[in-house]
Amino acid sequence: MLIGQQTWEFTSRPRVLGTGTAVGEKEGAGPLGTEFDLVFTDPYLGQESWEKAERKLLEQAQEMAVQKAGLSMESVDVSISGDLLPHIISANFAARTNGKPLLGIYSACATSMEAVALSALLVDARAAKYALASTSSHNSTAERVFRYPTEYGGQKPPTAHCTVTGAGAAVIGHGINGPIVRYATIGKVLDLGVKSPWEMGAAMAPAATDTIVAHFRDTGLTVNDYDFIATGDLARVGHPIARELLKHQGIELDERFSDCGILMYHEDQPEVFSGGSGPACCACVTFGHLLRRIQRGEWKRILVVATGALLSTVSAQQSETIPCIAHAVTFEAENLS
Amino acid sequence: MLIGQQTWEFTSRPRVLGTGTAVGEKEGAGPLGTEFDLVFTDPYLGQESWEKAERKLLEQAQEMAVQKAGLSMESVDVSISGDLLPHIISANFAARTNGKPLLGIYSACATSMEAVALSALLVDARAAKYALASTSSHNSTAERVFRYPTEYGGQKPPTAHCTVTGAGAAVIGHGINGPIVRYATIGKVLDLGVKSPWEMGAAMAPAATDTIVAHFRDTGLTVNDYDFIATGDLARVGHPIARELLKHQGIELDERFSDCGILMYHEDQPEVFSGGSGPACCACVTFGHLLRRIQRGEWKRILVVATGALLSTVSAQQSETIPCIAHAVTFEAENLS
Repeated sequence: MLIGQQTWEFTSRPRVLGTGTAVGEKEGAGPLGTEFDLVFTDPYLGQESWEKAERKLLEQAQEMAVQKAGLSMESVDVSISGDLLPHIISANFAARTNGKPLLGIYSACATSMEAVALSALLVDARAAKYALASTSSHNSTAERVFRYPTEYGGQKPPTAHCTVTGAGAAVIGHGINGPIVRYATIGKVLDLGVKSPWEMGAAMAPAATDTIVAHFRDTGLTVNDYDFIATGDLARVGHPIARELLKHQGIELDERFSDCGILMYHEDQPEVFSGGSGPACCACVTFGHLLRRIQRGEWKRILVVATGALLSTVSAQQSETIPCIAHAVTFEAENLS
Repeated sequence: MLIGQQTWEFTSRPRVLGTGTAVGEKEGAGPLGTEFDLVFTDPYLGQESWEKAERKLLEQAQEMAVQKAGLSMESVDVSISGDLLPHIISANFAARTNGKPLLGIYSACATSMEAVALSALLVDARAAKYALASTSSHNSTAERVFRYPTEYGGQKPPTAHCTVTGAGAAVIGHGINGPIVRYATIGKVLDLGVKSPWEMGAAMAPAATDTIVAHFRDTGLTVNDYDFIATGDLARVGHPIARELLKHQGIELDERFSDCGILMYHEDQPEVFSGGSGPACCACVTFGHLLRRIQRGEWKRILVVATGALLSTVSAQQSETIPCIAHAVTFEAENLS
């Protein structure tokens, strides 16, 4: 149910019953490489196109999540999925494969937490027993859409992001184990006038800040109630901006505040620029790494604030500024006191 | 709550409290022209690009719906919106204008009923008091994405559809007046192998059929419980195919079975080919016309089965077949006996 202005509280304790992550070589070579379920060194995954490779990643992550939840795809009631490609074709084609009713969604790199929020809502409202939340991105499919053909070898500034090749999926349902999905704060679209698609971190930082402030306002929780807060894909340029903006709102964050785009790669990995992005970035870091730390008992409560830059090729070509959004989800341990 | 396999029943009687429709000149000249709230004869709506014109249509429809619900935009809790453009930029930019938390969705021309279904679910689950469901399309923005630049004057076969220029919005909430949203059946992705983007009606007909059959199975309702059943945008080629497929499933439908793509235009209107399509088609026909017939007391219960062809430019260029989906929503009168 709605609490405050833009936050849902899930009172029936929906849980993340299983997660699946599948990533590419560069992500496998990063600091979280060993935490992902599947690492593919072939960027084509044996498929004939990058688009089909991305679809395969998504299908693999979905199957893995269902399997790790101890279920079969038969028992899943609904799939909530979206990706970075125009008309979310990865999600659509993967739904053709898995055969489940599909709710297609899109909020760019914030898609992962929109999927989790809606899945938890459906489970909470008994509109689904088990909902499958998932998203994907692929560096080469994204480059083709948003930037240059990779063959062109276009150079990028250090403020650029590296779109993560990967997919992440989570089964949300009632059960006895798994992190509890407690709150979701649905973001507003903010646009402070950044036009350059090389400055996604700067563009998205205000949206992340706005959603974090809204989350604290709506829930009455404070920074001290959280063991960790991760923004989506602000990376090394945008994350310090968000930190600064939060400070101006009276919210001081220490080393418990980080970013999925920073966590995904080593700082000195070649061609990751300011860090990771793409819907798979926040999905894989959250499902593969952050939730594990709750399950290992290291953390009791975390907030994942997935951020999305809602531009398109056409809007960029028409010199539009970049509208941005952030959706936040609270995950909790069982034994929260 | 979930009933059967893929249908939600809304038990708290969420209603359509207000609707807004804004269309272009060709739609205004159609048989439903006088039922739309706003008809714009300038395809640019005074804007500098078709994309900005589409956004303006969406903003106008959203404002109209909120106004006709007797509310202000302030009281709306969440906007659920998507459109036909890559990365749903119309929905994203409109959300920047209206300032509401946004859940971006995409299921091509089935987006309207996905938006209504999710809005009713949110209201039913008390995750929103008032949810704004909306979608848009514009003939010239869609041509640019999916076909040829309009200036090129490419010829089309008679099986082609005409993408509706328009936008439709509905405020869903609890109240004392307005059609009740009773059920929503979430569709699966079906793909029977149609590759040609000129054959959308044929491609989508099996998905419409599948969802209608699922709806009857899940709810226990039959054809006789409905005064009218409208598919989304199968138009004059696809609609008879759906009728035939349903007949094979033992479901015989008479003149109470029609299609939003057929209803939108006169058969002899120039350049409408087999009929209308685009997310705005089903949205405008439903919100502008079908729901009025419930409100005028002519009908007690209708089923709107919005259909979507989930292709993209890239998937078509890569010779993929067209995955399709259909989402169905039941609207009921107050005095249903």
